[in-house]
Amino acid sequence: MIRIGVHRSTYKVIAFAFVVGLVLPSLMQAQLLSFPKQDLVDYTAQNPFDRSTDGRPKIPDDLIDRARELSSEEVWAVLEEKGFHNQYADGFHVLHPGKTMVGRAFTVQFMPLRSDIDEIAKAKAKEHGMPRLMNQTAIDMLQPGDVLVVDLFGKKVNGTIVGDNLFYYTMKATHSGGLVVDGSIRDLNGISEIDMPAYFRAVDPTPIGEVMLTGINVPVRIGGVTVMPGDLVVGDREGVYFVPPHLVKEVLDRADEIHIHDEWTKKKFDEGKYKSSEIYGSPSDPKLQQEYKDYLKKRLDEIHKQRSSK
Amino acid sequence: MIRIGVHRSTYKVIAFAFVVGLVLPSLMQAQLLSFPKQDLVDYTAQNPFDRSTDGRPKIPDDLIDRARELSSEEVWAVLEEKGFHNQYADGFHVLHPGKTMVGRAFTVQFMPLRSDIDEIAKAKAKEHGMPRLMNQTAIDMLQPGDVLVVDLFGKKVNGTIVGDNLFYYTMKATHSGGLVVDGSIRDLNGISEIDMPAYFRAVDPTPIGEVMLTGINVPVRIGGVTVMPGDLVVGDREGVYFVPPHLVKEVLDRADEIHIHDEWTKKKFDEGKYKSSEIYGSPSDPKLQQEYKDYLKKRLDEIHKQRSSK
Amino acid sequence: MIRIGVHRSTYKVIAFAFVVGLVLPSLMQAQLLSFPKQDLVDYTAQNPFDRSTDGRPKIPDDLIDRARELSSEEVWAVLEEKGFHNQYADGFHVLHPGKTMVGRAFTVQFMPLRSDIDEIAKAKAKEHGMPRLMNQTAIDMLQPGDVLVVDLFGKKVNGTIVGDNLFYYTMKATHSGGLVVDGSIRDLNGISEIDMPAYFRAVDPTPIGEVMLTGINVPVRIGGVTVMPGDLVVGDREGVYFVPPHLVKEVLDRADEIHIHDEWTKKKFDEGKYKSSEIYGSPSDPKLQQEYKDYLKKRLDEIHKQRSSK
Amino acid sequence: MIRIGVHRSTYKVIAFAFVVGLVLPSLMQAQLLSFPKQDLVDYTAQNPFDRSTDGRPKIPDDLIDRARELSSEEVWAVLEEKGFHNQYADGFHVLHPGKTMVGRAFTVQFMPLRSDIDEIAKAKAKEHGMPRLMNQTAIDMLQPGDVLVVDLFGKKVNGTIVGDNLFYYTMKATHSGGLVVDGSIRDLNGISEIDMPAYFRAVDPTPIGEVMLTGINVPVRIGGVTVMPGDLVVGDREGVYFVPPHLVKEVLDRADEIHIHDEWTKKKFDEGKYKSSEIYGSPSDPKLQQEYKDYLKKRLDEIHKQRSSK
Amino acid sequence: MIRIGVHRSTYKVIAFAFVVGLVLPSLMQAQLLSFPKQDLVDYTAQNPFDRSTDGRPKIPDDLIDRARELSSEEVWAVLEEKGFHNQYADGFHVLHPGKTMVGRAFTVQFMPLRSDIDEIAKAKAKEHGMPRLMNQTAIDMLQPGDVLVVDLFGKKVNGTIVGDNLFYYTMKATHSGGLVVDGSIRDLNGISEIDMPAYFRAVDPTPIGEVMLTGINVPVRIGGVTVMPGDLVVGDREGVYFVPPHLVKEVLDRADEIHIHDEWTKKKFDEGKYKSSEIYGSPSDPKLQQEYKDYLKKRLDEIHKQRSSK
Amino acid sequence: MIRIGVHRSTYKVIAFAFVVGLVLPSLMQAQLLSFPKQDLVDYTAQNPFDRSTDGRPKIPDDLIDRARELSSEEVWAVLEEKGFHNQYADGFHVLHPGKTMVGRAFTVQFMPLRSDIDEIAKAKAKEHGMPRLMNQTAIDMLQPGDVLVVDLFGKKVNGTIVGDNLFYYTMKATHSGGLVVDGSIRDLNGISEIDMPAYFRAVDPTPIGEVMLTGINVPVRIGGVTVMPGDLVVGDREGVYFVPPHLVKEVLDRADEIHIHDEWTKKKFDEGKYKSSEIYGSPSDPKLQQEYKDYLKKRLDEIHKQRSSK
Repeated sequence: MIRIGVHRSTYKVIAFAFVVGLVLPSLMQAQLLSFPKQDLVDYTAQNPFDRSTDGRPKIPDDLIDRARELSSEEVWAVLEEKGFHNQYADGFHVLHPGKTMVGRAFTVQFMPLRSDIDEIAKAKAKEHGMPRLMNQTAIDMLQPGDVLVVDLFGKKVNGTIVGDNLFYYTMKATHSGGLVVDGSIRDLNGISEIDMPAYFRAVDPTPIGEVMLTGINVPVRIGGVTVMPGDLVVGDREGVYFVPPHLVKEVLDRADEIHIHDEWTKKKFDEGKYKSSEIYGSPSDPKLQQEYKDYLKKRLDEIHKQRSSK
Repeated sequence: MIRIGVHRSTYKVIAFAFVVGLVLPSLMQAQLLSFPKQDLVDYTAQNPFDRSTDGRPKIPDDLIDRARELSSEEVWAVLEEKGFHNQYADGFHVLHPGKTMVGRAFTVQFMPLRSDIDEIAKAKAKEHGMPRLMNQTAIDMLQPGDVLVVDLFGKKVNGTIVGDNLFYYTMKATHSGGLVVDGSIRDLNGISEIDMPAYFRAVDPTPIGEVMLTGINVPVRIGGVTVMPGDLVVGDREGVYFVPPHLVKEVLDRADEIHIHDEWTKKKFDEGKYKSSEIYGSPSDPKLQQEYKDYLKKRLDEIHKQRSSK
Repeated sequence: MIRIGVHRSTYKVIAFAFVVGLVLPSLMQAQLLSFPKQDLVDYTAQNPFDRSTDGRPKIPDDLIDRARELSSEEVWAVLEEKGFHNQYADGFHVLHPGKTMVGRAFTVQFMPLRSDIDEIAKAKAKEHGMPRLMNQTAIDMLQPGDVLVVDLFGKKVNGTIVGDNLFYYTMKATHSGGLVVDGSIRDLNGISEIDMPAYFRAVDPTPIGEVMLTGINVPVRIGGVTVMPGDLVVGDREGVYFVPPHLVKEVLDRADEIHIHDEWTKKKFDEGKYKSSEIYGSPSDPKLQQEYKDYLKKRLDEIHKQRSSK
Repeated sequence: MIRIGVHRSTYKVIAFAFVVGLVLPSLMQAQLLSFPKQDLVDYTAQNPFDRSTDGRPKIPDDLIDRARELSSEEVWAVLEEKGFHNQYADGFHVLHPGKTMVGRAFTVQFMPLRSDIDEIAKAKAKEHGMPRLMNQTAIDMLQPGDVLVVDLFGKKVNGTIVGDNLFYYTMKATHSGGLVVDGSIRDLNGISEIDMPAYFRAVDPTPIGEVMLTGINVPVRIGGVTVMPGDLVVGDREGVYFVPPHLVKEVLDRADEIHIHDEWTKKKFDEGKYKSSEIYGSPSDPKLQQEYKDYLKKRLDEIHKQRSSK
Repeated sequence: MIRIGVHRSTYKVIAFAFVVGLVLPSLMQAQLLSFPKQDLVDYTAQNPFDRSTDGRPKIPDDLIDRARELSSEEVWAVLEEKGFHNQYADGFHVLHPGKTMVGRAFTVQFMPLRSDIDEIAKAKAKEHGMPRLMNQTAIDMLQPGDVLVVDLFGKKVNGTIVGDNLFYYTMKATHSGGLVVDGSIRDLNGISEIDMPAYFRAVDPTPIGEVMLTGINVPVRIGGVTVMPGDLVVGDREGVYFVPPHLVKEVLDRADEIHIHDEWTKKKFDEGKYKSSEIYGSPSDPKLQQEYKDYLKKRLDEIHKQRSSK
Repeated sequence: MIRIGVHRSTYKVIAFAFVVGLVLPSLMQAQLLSFPKQDLVDYTAQNPFDRSTDGRPKIPDDLIDRARELSSEEVWAVLEEKGFHNQYADGFHVLHPGKTMVGRAFTVQFMPLRSDIDEIAKAKAKEHGMPRLMNQTAIDMLQPGDVLVVDLFGKKVNGTIVGDNLFYYTMKATHSGGLVVDGSIRDLNGISEIDMPAYFRAVDPTPIGEVMLTGINVPVRIGGVTVMPGDLVVGDREGVYFVPPHLVKEVLDRADEIHIHDEWTKKKFDEGKYKSSEIYGSPSDPKLQQEYKDYLKKRLDEIHKQRSSK
């Protein structure tokens, strides 16, 4: 719901949210901190998949789809084992708690406004034939399957990355990918009617302001996580996991086994004959162990068959 | 759910919540801080509307109705422009998040109990033929269209302005106007089934106590806002705005334009031909600008026709 | 959703959640703090009901059923009068806000892990032919009508008493009794689909760890409450009350009167002829007082008749 | 350290802190909430002492001097007994922890700025030949022995009641009486070298702004306390007590006894012959009880003699 | 500074702090949770030292003396290595920041008051010829070299384990051992003049109340630590470590090496010839490594000689 | 006090703090985010002073010396006027409150550890003949007059930039310049005896760990401030200001005037003839205004003479 009259006024913080053309080639020249495409490729060298034209790892669509069944605990199991202790962030407001968020991280970094630096940045942008960087610069670059991941250092007042209009545009552009902002949003009334997952720290009626966009698709920090462009983002009712692309396949395969284990455990509990400790985490009785192993094998086969038949 | 047995006991904090007759004329004599009707008139001299018999500005019902479509951001746009930086409070529990609260502020102020002062206040009240002031004194004065706005200085334990019985009465008396309390409520189970908007800091099973009612329809502080009796109260999913009466018309007219702008922006985004920055906040292409201006004019005309035909 | 692969790894905190046989007789020998059955009987000597085989007071099923209508405020009225100021805990996440939790407290206490103490505890358990104490030891002892009450001293990371598998088992074992944990849970996505009330401080993807189970059915502290095994646990949208068994009957009878009082008050408010202060908490007009007394008597008779006819 | 250049600029928040003449007679006309002198007299009717010309109770200087020996606990003992549960505030930064603050409360109230109200207040002030009310209006009215007690509703940024210049003036005017502000100060570096006790919530470099002075010597709220003009203010390392004048004498006399009791208790502990429970709070042995009573009488006599000889 | 008049009143919370005789043999019978002497011995079986008559490990005085040089980091180094991750608590107010606290843990546990339980406990105490358990019961049992460690579950109001009289007694009884309370103290003005280290969460003018003493020299929880009776307590400017007795010797020996390493590192830095990374944590140059090794050996020899010559 | 034994263990987080040679030329190749020297020069183009060899603006020593007299309020006056609203950070623990910190910002940025990224960074460093980047890499680059400014995103546990050994080295290398860390330190006992100003969020016994050094002398964020390498850092009892070099001269000159204004104001207050509002902020009486102007001129002349004579 921005503010038709506002562009006629001289109100500074609003002036921030305006017109931008297209920018990709010389983008690096205009942002305060640079992270060249080659660096992105180097630092995600373990990526087993293709890459987007901007250099980000491109986790394939079928894996993205499978990831919709993931929960935080299933991601935890593999990441913890692999020594990734810092990939989970929580403490967000969750817009649609029943809807899992899944997608490829498109990262944006802001820093507190400092006018001497900002003037130079604008001059540099101009010199390269670009408008100044701002939230819409980034939003206009979003692709289907992206999740917009924004480091606004927890800012509430004037830390609102989008209102309902740009949220709607983001939903269209990402095909309902999602939004994670370590900052705030505005227009919650309007946003809550739009069907895209979102995770934010606060809500405020002010527009974005007193900040500078300092990086697009650079490494950013969300809570205690270093997020890389192209990470798999998985958000459930509890929080958000950022999964390095080279671990995605293993996380998904492990999740299959966990789903089957849950199925079987629940089935055994429903029989009413066992204590929880006889069944869960692993049956103590060797016969039951075998039963479980057979069940696991059978169900995995079924799942694989079903997937390949698609 | 108060407590049929309780009035037979001597439990002090409950004794607080009892019988009161009618009080208006000498009310001022019995409250600790006075704000005579003439002061209320003087301090709201810009009010363009009629006044209630108690001196409060009376925003007309048709404007109240239009205000049901407002969101925090729309109010922000005008108030910020006019230099009102301190009219928004948030951080509340919101009882019915999907339902906007709209009405005229009926304010009540409490302060921590201090027995020497309280004794005098009771004596003064008696002298003027009034019972002591308490929460029901205020609640019995509510009118249709009012929102009960209570400064209980964030108190949780014994800071419960109403339980479900008085909440029900308030709903009846205000015709579902609403409640904002910088304090707590009790009987949330019962209250959550009653269809009136409410904003509160906490919930607690204790009744109100250890406080003195020190003012009715005096200026009060809610979070960082000075609220005047008769202000337009607008609550959405995010927080509550208190709008001075002389700004109400402008807020509503601006909101019409914002709604149309949102409509048009969404329509353009749905066409899928534009970047967000080409359309939003204001189109860069002069042809699109003209298209928008025509659309705006047409829709405003339709709205005005529709309103006048009612 | 625990983690089929995990038992094959050596990851310590998971190793915590494994196989246990049955233990009751020598349980006391293996827990750090002891509270022998005779002590439990002595300290709950006012209990007017039977006892479970483990010594806990056993509030009868029909009273448990009646307690489903209770709210925090109704419990407060009697407990406050009897001088029990410290029986209420709040500040929890409430899993199913519209569903009251009622049952008999089954208490579990954890303390921070300390390896020298833990080694001895394991040795003592082994000496008595028992596996080490852990969360499943307690969960396997749950009975229908129990509410699992766990003191995990507010721990979030590795303070997760159950995930969805053990939550499901607990639901089955207690017949949807419920869970209160001064700590966290995991697998919220899965848990939110299971129909049992639960109150917890946080959600985290980690499994339980870095703690020792130090007592089962011992007195525990939840927030500012000393909870005894066998207490009536009542949870509503606001928080949780722990009611000593000898006060249960009085709480329920008082609640009947409060319900009738609410009914009558609402009826009078609906007539639209009275100020709130003329009706609530007790009518000022003697004729109305009599009307209320008659109504109360009539309704109580109806209720008692209805109950005895079951 | 304010800011010679600043008055030449147009920076709004600074403009706040300027020139004021003298105001007393018509002060009431210009403040938002009124509390006429007669009300002050009525609400402090139990005051056993003279009054200042502004109507505040004037606790005599010799009692103020004796109060320098008080601690929070000694005040607590009497106030609790008399049913004053809400007279203590803590959580402040304490400027000079080793120095007790004692004096008569001079109260000031601020509310969040609201320009429509502020305009009217300025107009009213002008009409009565007064400049607008602001922090210096109040500070210029301070008398020796006063403690400046300011309700700035916890505001940090732009909630700075004084910097070092006005703090210095306050020290001079009150003869080192003191300052309590439920808000902030600025210029801590300079202030920490000035020998006057002060209690504040925070420190900030901004000047006071975005607030309106709404009352001088009206009842104010500091934390959970209702403070009346003329209250005895006692601040120690822990927090601040506000003592109603009619209780001052009893608090001081009780403190004499407590000091003697402490003296005697310490003496007995130094003998090393007793358990703490044999001596403290009251000796169990009747012979020791008598010894204490004799000691108490003797020391009280000495103290009274010493005081009357001054 | 308690309160000579208070024992004449009927004020409940004060009544709590009174007369107690001696109790040791049947102490276990009167406390809610029991931890028999044999259990204490069993659970501290690795203790290499003598024991006090109450069964607690008795770390020898000369090691206590050496521990006065310890800092949190030196204790951390050994405990972390040995797998003790949960032995450190911080977030306290530190009474005398420049003075290290060292001693043997004497533990006390309180729980929230619950009158049915409290009545039984009093009856049990009476039956065994003991007065009820209270704070002085514990304080009267303190020995030279003890640190009083109190679990008051973070309670502030009425969570004050001692005022200045009992603090003075504790100082005398423990020979300035110290106090750690996960709760509050009162009489800070008086206490700050007494030369004993103390760590507390808050200060409040109220006396202890609304609690029950539930255990003396039982395992207690302080922050995230399980503290055992007889643990070495080490408090510095940062926080408090609780060291199991069997690790004390190793902690102290490691600290000797760290002190020497610090000495040598500082000496090399003072020479001004090296980068920090050439010297610290371990020199990269083999010649410097040898120099350090020689220095370490020489200084350790000197220290050992000096100690044995005492 | 690090830990001679530690390098023999395999404990990971310690392994972090080790040997590094010299790095400057290829530093940019090994850090995650790059900010080439030319960018630093471009973004600080308004710098009126020389530059260090690393490209940072080099505020001259005599201005650094004059800045020792600054307080937060004096910096605020100029920065606010120039539109720099985001250059102040507070909420730190201040090591030596009476000692102003002044120097040139040397910035360091850390992000949460992520092993895939960290491996690449190490490989890149190796490829350029450098050891991995770590805290000592940065510390070894410090110059006299620098203040070490570290963004550790508020991390407490394992967020400890230095212990006492590296703090001592920093003091030597910067000639007591100072340290600001949005994170923690360890060894507070040792550090508090070293004479260098320091501002930190917390203290913890753990060493630095679970983080990656991602930038040296890049723009960093401290609280709500964007800090540029070479900024003037000014810390007083309240907080820390980061002043862009091109504003330093004006801040210092304005401070001269403020000091004189304070002097004169105090002198007038000492005369005891004026109300505060007659003198402060600016005298209302034209004669006094003239007196002040003359005084200001005279004192400025004296100061300038005194400075040029040095």
